[in-house]
Amino acid sequence: MSANSDQTRERIVAAAARLFYNEGIRAASVDAIAEKAGVTKKTLYYHFRSKDELIAAYLESRDQPTLDLYARWFEQTPGSATDKVLGLFAEFARSTDTMKWKGCGFLRTAAELANTPGHPALKAGAAHKKRFEAWFTDSLAREGVGNAAATARSIIVLLDGAATVMLIHRDPAYVETAGAVAASLVKTAGSSNA
Amino acid sequence: MSANSDQTRERIVAAAARLFYNEGIRAASVDAIAEKAGVTKKTLYYHFRSKDELIAAYLESRDQPTLDLYARWFEQTPGSATDKVLGLFAEFARSTDTMKWKGCGFLRTAAELANTPGHPALKAGAAHKKRFEAWFTDSLAREGVGNAAATARSIIVLLDGAATVMLIHRDPAYVETAGAVAASLVKTAGSSNA
Repeated sequence: MSANSDQTRERIVAAAARLFYNEGIRAASVDAIAEKAGVTKKTLYYHFRSKDELIAAYLESRDQPTLDLYARWFEQTPGSATDKVLGLFAEFARSTDTMKWKGCGFLRTAAELANTPGHPALKAGAAHKKRFEAWFTDSLAREGVGNAAATARSIIVLLDGAATVMLIHRDPAYVETAGAVAASLVKTAGSSNA
Repeated sequence: MSANSDQTRERIVAAAARLFYNEGIRAASVDAIAEKAGVTKKTLYYHFRSKDELIAAYLESRDQPTLDLYARWFEQTPGSATDKVLGLFAEFARSTDTMKWKGCGFLRTAAELANTPGHPALKAGAAHKKRFEAWFTDSLAREGVGNAAATARSIIVLLDGAATVMLIHRDPAYVETAGAVAASLVKTAGSSNA
């Protein structure tokens, strides 16, 4: 593919990401995405065979940036492993405190696609969440946290739970609760850098 | 309203509940709901001014049955407060182990409505989750669990997290993880019936 064609593809994915995240994957139409990207529908369908493929491409495009964001939140916090986990939750709470925040795009997409097992976007979402879990396990292990895999998994259920409950109540107290439990799990697991 | 009219309303809500839960609230059309309920669209709109009102009625119809189900899971488990919490998670895990299970209808609806703050169904969903939290706080307090409100809230974040993550991975190991953390929270909080 030419550089030009690559740029067109990227522009379509960026437009899709914005509309799918802001409006939901069923509410955002292919027409609206083509218009936002400034391409014809024919061009869009040259790059993506179907809307389903475009939904998967949206989530794939959010995989690495999401990992980078959480890694920054974790690593930028000085102090112990417990401090770093609390820092991650504090930054997450801050990120939710805006009308622009509309939950976790991966979880919301899975919620909309609950009736289509095997959908390419469900696979992309599961792959992202597995990568996230692997990254977080490694990060806890590097900080010397005991039972890193089990501790990481428990904290991820809390994090995804907080992201989901926030869409219901829009009350950061739930994120604080999740963060406090996560910190207690790190303390209980023990750490060479607690 | 006549008894007949009440029955018609109930039939419409039951049809809406089935289609909204199975397909998603945007994917299920008012036409399909009217057809499934065996009424004309005119009759449907006599009972509900809009699809949005019907979505709220769907969640309101699931409020008490959902509370009853979890209360049964908690209360039917013999033993300590810890046992009862583990029993609740075990029953929840069992309920997810079928293709019919498509997540928590309240959370999935909130995910689809993330861009419409103030939507009547978001209010119905938030009211249900608050009632659930109040019921669970009372249940833990009755079992003599310390810090019942904070413990209940923490466990609810784990439960909603598990329900959400299950839509991504369909792997009951995540529910087991959530249940184990929940049980450890009850133990840490202390109980007159631990």
